[in-house]
Parts: sequence; structure tokens; C-alpha cells
Amino acid sequence: MKITNLTKVKKTRMEMEGAKNTWKQVPLSRNDGSPNFSFRVFTIEPDGHTPYHSHPFEHLNYVIEGRGALVMEAGETRPVVKGDFVLVLPEEKHQYRNADSSKPLVIICAVPKDYE
Amino acid sequence: MKITNLTKVKKTRMEMEGAKNTWKQVPLSRNDGSPNFSFRVFTIEPDGHTPYHSHPFEHLNYVIEGRGALVMEAGETRPVVKGDFVLVLPEEKHQYRNADSSKPLVIICAVPKDYE
Repeated sequence: MKITNLTKVKKTRMEMEGAKNTWKQVPLSRNDGSPNFSFRVFTIEPDGHTPYHSHPFEHLNYVIEGRGALVMEAGETRPVVKGDFVLVLPEEKHQYRNADSSKPLVIICAVPKDYE
Repeated sequence: MKITNLTKVKKTRMEMEGAKNTWKQVPLSRNDGSPNFSFRVFTIEPDGHTPYHSHPFEHLNYVIEGRGALVMEAGETRPVVKGDFVLVLPEEKHQYRNADSSKPLVIICAVPKDYE
């Protein structure tokens, strides 16, 4: 059993190419003995975004707070808000952009443990 | 890609023995094509709780809102609040109880897709 709070989890800047003003936390992962998957949290500051990319594994996302735009295939976008759940399938292009000029967009991003 | 909001996901009463005043939603699962795992959400009303039990798979939990008590092995309890993440390993006994007399406790409960 592990219990932690987001406020206690180390925050590191996302340095991946294509990311801007985005921070990563990993509250639950294989380092805690998780057998199958990990929970990361991304905090995307105003004017920030994650990379526009795809990869061979899925994301299961939950929007903790804020307002964002999810960029999909061919640049099509959909708004996302607190309380939204998103399933990004393997190889689907995606990017999260903060759509608010003053508040962060905070999302859970769950992935198979081999990727985090 | 699937995008949905918790307010749009069907809610069913949890009928499992040992559960009380608890509702389940399944925003993301294998029915949506999720390759490895599912996101469920439990809403535990005041005076409600999930079963006190264990099983051969893990839970990854996130507390969306409310205040609860997590009952662990031998009846030991820990408080949980909004923003907490919990990893319940396979075969660890656990139960979530609402600790607030007026507000629901709402938690994400992620499990391997074969279990939901």
C-alpha cells in the first residue's frame, strides 16, 4: 500500500522536444511495486503544451483541473475540462494545450509501467 | 480516441456484498478498446463504504473529492483526502469509507482490463 498526495510528489520540468511550460510528477509507478501501470500527472501552465506526437502505447487521462484543448489527428482539436476522461489509443497523435490564460491545466496520464 | 465527462457516464449502484451507499461508473475500459486497463469511478455517499476485501489484482486510486478513511490490513485506517493517490497491491485488504457526513467521497479506481 502506498498513500501520497500530489502536493508531496517531486515535480520536474518536461524537457521533451515539443513540450512547453509543462511539469511532470509520478505519484504511482513500478518503483512503488505497481504490477502493470503508472500514474503520472502533468501540470501545463498558461501558454504551455505537451508534445504533438504519437507512440506505441496508450494514455488514460483524467482532467483534475483547468481548461485545455486536445489536438488530435490532422490538427483537429476538442475542448477538455475538469472531470473529462480521455482514452488515447496506441499510435494516435495527440497534444494537450492549456486554453486558459491564468490557470494551469492539470491531468492524470496513466501508462503501462514499462513506459514510466 | 474517446473523450467523455464523468457527468455523462452511466451510474449504477454497487451491489457487491459489503458495499453500502456506493455508486460505480466506468468511463474508460476494454469496451472502448483500452489495451491494458480500465478507469472506474466510485461515489461513496455519506455513511457509505466499499467492501472490506482483497483480490488478486491491484488498484490505482485517485481521490477526486471528499474525505475518507482507508481501512487496511488488521483494520488499521488512514485518512484520505482530495488529491491523494493510493496504490493497493494484489491481495492487500482494503476498504474506502466516507468520513464526511454531508459530502460524497469520489475516487478513481483503475484496474487491469480483465477485471472490469
